[in-house]
Amino acid sequence: MKLHNYFRSSASFRVRIALELKGLAYDYLPVHLVKGEHKSEKYAAISASGLVPALETDDGELLSQSMAIIEYLDETHPQPPLLPADALGRARVRALAQLIACEIHPLNNLRVLKYLVRDLKVEEEAKNTWYRHWVRSGLELFEKELARLPAATYCYGDAPTLADCCLVPQIFNGQRFNVDFSGLTRTMAAFEACMRHPAFQKAQPSNCPDNEG
Amino acid sequence: MKLHNYFRSSASFRVRIALELKGLAYDYLPVHLVKGEHKSEKYAAISASGLVPALETDDGELLSQSMAIIEYLDETHPQPPLLPADALGRARVRALAQLIACEIHPLNNLRVLKYLVRDLKVEEEAKNTWYRHWVRSGLELFEKELARLPAATYCYGDAPTLADCCLVPQIFNGQRFNVDFSGLTRTMAAFEACMRHPAFQKAQPSNCPDNEG
Repeated sequence: MKLHNYFRSSASFRVRIALELKGLAYDYLPVHLVKGEHKSEKYAAISASGLVPALETDDGELLSQSMAIIEYLDETHPQPPLLPADALGRARVRALAQLIACEIHPLNNLRVLKYLVRDLKVEEEAKNTWYRHWVRSGLELFEKELARLPAATYCYGDAPTLADCCLVPQIFNGQRFNVDFSGLTRTMAAFEACMRHPAFQKAQPSNCPDNEG
Repeated sequence: MKLHNYFRSSASFRVRIALELKGLAYDYLPVHLVKGEHKSEKYAAISASGLVPALETDDGELLSQSMAIIEYLDETHPQPPLLPADALGRARVRALAQLIACEIHPLNNLRVLKYLVRDLKVEEEAKNTWYRHWVRSGLELFEKELARLPAATYCYGDAPTLADCCLVPQIFNGQRFNVDFSGLTRTMAAFEACMRHPAFQKAQPSNCPDNEG
């Protein structure tokens, strides 16, 4: 398999975690977002929408959207599972993942920050406030959702799931912008449990070949 | 089952479509977003994160996040299926759904538009331009993704899927803000096929009990 991705992209990081959790080897193919490589003609052949990550399967199929890719990996390589065995558990884990992937992260990705600055003439400080607002307020909702679930090592239960694949990159992102994580007890406990796990360590941006530090 | 939702919420509309496609009866419980009812203490008992929709199952379980709810409905009431039978097909449909739910819709929901006006002091016209920008540019990516898939009546294949549940509310939303849909051939053909289907008709905002016209 080949993963077309960027070290700092949260969505890429999610898929790298899943690949490491599954113990699947893959070729790392960097796409430099800041240099605009995702908008090149070459990359258009890989991803119609020009987004990272894109997973290229051994059969040459090209898959997009990180959560869809992770579910595909989970279905085609079931061990260890990244979703619970029961429908209710799966709904809980998917909802946690989507709370991050649909409510928090979309507001903070590169093209949105660029639009704020270029089109809305938002100053640097207001842009950073925007960033921190959506991460902090989104994680507060995440914490409330976790608080209603049974005690767990990770986001849901005692093994990493799709929810943890989404949580960890979001925390990394927040750290870069000095988001306040205080009081997010369950959330940060799950994050710390993940960071003690070798798969999450291995997948992190600082271990990527295209890492710029 | 009970659906806590709002007639104009895209995420609510997605779940209503799925319920109608499955032929499942449900109680419609309105939550008035503009009046802030989702932030009430009463609603906090239903949804920890205070978001709509929330599905209350007959067992009293409360589920959040529209795509997670739809997958739960699909797993617990498999006919008619809203995802293909094969892993690759499921990955394609989920990716289409997520392209809308993670790349387009989050930038245009009510709390984001409010933040633009209240915190960033963005004028009405610039707010509308923002709205149209993300819907139009996102749907252009969607169209490119569809263009690589085999010819189909709906987004994927000849029966409605999770992708159509997400597409139709996004088009409705775009229509309210006069988004230009020209040239989005496959996308609009799928939308029109959906609108000929009674489930999509029945689920639309104008047929909701809390519709304000």
